[in-house]
Amino acid sequence: MRGTVMYAAGDVRIENVPDPRIEERTDAVIRVTRACICGSDLWPYKTLQPDEGARVMGHEAIGVVEEAGSDVRTLKVGDVVVMPFAFSDGNCIFCEQGLQTACIHGGFFGNPDVPGAQSEAVRIPQADGTLYALPVGEDDALMPSLLTLSDVLGTGHHAAAVARVGPGASVAVVGDGAVGLCGVIAAKRLGAEQIIIMGRHDDRIALARDFGATDVVSERGPEAVERVKELTGGYGVDSVLECVGLDQSMETSIEIARPGGAVGRVGVPQHELIPNAQPSFFKNITIGGGPAPVRAYIDELLPDVLDGRIEPGRVFDRVVDLDGVPDGYRAMNDRESIKVLMRP
Amino acid sequence: MRGTVMYAAGDVRIENVPDPRIEERTDAVIRVTRACICGSDLWPYKTLQPDEGARVMGHEAIGVVEEAGSDVRTLKVGDVVVMPFAFSDGNCIFCEQGLQTACIHGGFFGNPDVPGAQSEAVRIPQADGTLYALPVGEDDALMPSLLTLSDVLGTGHHAAAVARVGPGASVAVVGDGAVGLCGVIAAKRLGAEQIIIMGRHDDRIALARDFGATDVVSERGPEAVERVKELTGGYGVDSVLECVGLDQSMETSIEIARPGGAVGRVGVPQHELIPNAQPSFFKNITIGGGPAPVRAYIDELLPDVLDGRIEPGRVFDRVVDLDGVPDGYRAMNDRESIKVLMRP
Repeated sequence: MRGTVMYAAGDVRIENVPDPRIEERTDAVIRVTRACICGSDLWPYKTLQPDEGARVMGHEAIGVVEEAGSDVRTLKVGDVVVMPFAFSDGNCIFCEQGLQTACIHGGFFGNPDVPGAQSEAVRIPQADGTLYALPVGEDDALMPSLLTLSDVLGTGHHAAAVARVGPGASVAVVGDGAVGLCGVIAAKRLGAEQIIIMGRHDDRIALARDFGATDVVSERGPEAVERVKELTGGYGVDSVLECVGLDQSMETSIEIARPGGAVGRVGVPQHELIPNAQPSFFKNITIGGGPAPVRAYIDELLPDVLDGRIEPGRVFDRVVDLDGVPDGYRAMNDRESIKVLMRP
Repeated sequence: MRGTVMYAAGDVRIENVPDPRIEERTDAVIRVTRACICGSDLWPYKTLQPDEGARVMGHEAIGVVEEAGSDVRTLKVGDVVVMPFAFSDGNCIFCEQGLQTACIHGGFFGNPDVPGAQSEAVRIPQADGTLYALPVGEDDALMPSLLTLSDVLGTGHHAAAVARVGPGASVAVVGDGAVGLCGVIAAKRLGAEQIIIMGRHDDRIALARDFGATDVVSERGPEAVERVKELTGGYGVDSVLECVGLDQSMETSIEIARPGGAVGRVGVPQHELIPNAQPSFFKNITIGGGPAPVRAYIDELLPDVLDGRIEPGRVFDRVVDLDGVPDGYRAMNDRESIKVLMRP
């Protein structure tokens, strides 16, 4: 079959790769009907060294079950399923706590060991625990929004949940990428009263406002902190959704949180150290987050997607076929596109 | 009156200092009947530079109200009161959330601006919000335990609360000082099933065991991490109480937390950056804590002290008079004493 192989920074090719097949009795193979490119795919796109190993990319997909291993109990051939970006057995101690991204038998798609979903098909380890069957046909009009259940919607929700967003909260969303935009949706959905989007791209800001953002801060660094404080009576926000992962965005996040506030970080950290150890201490800020257990959140988020109460699929502003994926990377990296959807 | 003045690292003197007096109508003045030396006092004792300004030390005390400003409503002369280490008005937005250490009109005792309580008397700003009247006489036998309500017991409790200790939890307490020992009491009180004390002083370990510690880890660094994992089925603990404040203790704390776990830090950080930004992210560890709002916790903790269900006063292993305070600093700094109680 054909798939997306990244060899090094900027070097993404569509090539013939081995067909996925059942390797364990708990595996399934799905034919990919929708996949997409993630903001986190742009980190290796910027930095991957040739000696780190080529990888079949992609960790977000919807597909149709083509084959199921003999131990797969809950899925059948033909099911339309969403694939969370992490696979998980669904019954270890961490899965049972709803932290599937720490599954003892789990892992992540799209790395040198586990081929990813920007392909015609993909092998799904721990299929029963991983896949979620959708009550729709494979070409349902809601596909873009449903596809966000595989990562960005659940990730934005995780940031909001960890940052303890609740009714009446003041919230700042740091980062206006697809995850940040889904963070706006999540904050609004959880009852936030004030939602400040921090970003500087007109198209993204406009979408954030549609999703429920009440204020925009386009400054950076100390000016951004000053502006957020002005917007919040001088104290900062209750909840910060850190959707970038850089040292400076984390520094800003801690500075704009009010005493007793919380920072939910879902931007994959590109830094080794969390800044502002003392300000965060003296303000009693809580810092949490990590890879979102999106599998756990589907039950809660799916009804709102099916009812059209939320429209996270609007983060996709470009659709490509498999051959269009390399240019999709370029477009996202150049900030020409917010998020690229792929139909093989 | 006489008080404890720190001029520089290692230079602590008992001297005549100005008598405290009512400066604002919301002030009170208390005659100090019990005070003590805090582990956090040892930081300036190790590092204070002469040009940073001399200070009357001490932020933990019990005393008797001698004089109250004209706006003080809830206290009267003669009341026996506990003084939390931070003063607070009790009615700002942060106090109302139970975060008195972020009070808009609040502050801390024992710095160049606000004289402290290792003295014969002390001025209490925002007396109504700050002081808590005790239902005992000034020489009650429970005084040592009641005195811990001013800082170390509430601080240990804060670490446990922030680290989400609950029934059945596995807990590690990093640091065997008075706060760590009170963290053991707090963890036990909140229902922890396994409490690992990490320390290497025999007297403190023995006390920790009396307070409810089930395991002891005396190793440091990677060996300590290994040992905690062995004791917890390979995964680490649910909750870590970081009661030291050093870079390495924070690093260890993050490493011994299991996925989805929480670190409650109450050791005043001596570092600018929190280590392990990536491991804490990939494990979805929550890091919280800061100066404990001990004023908020007195309602909950006092009954257990009065009933003798907990005996935090056992952390005091030396009693001195005011003239004995400088040697008390030395003894605590040399690890000869866990915590020194002072009766003026």
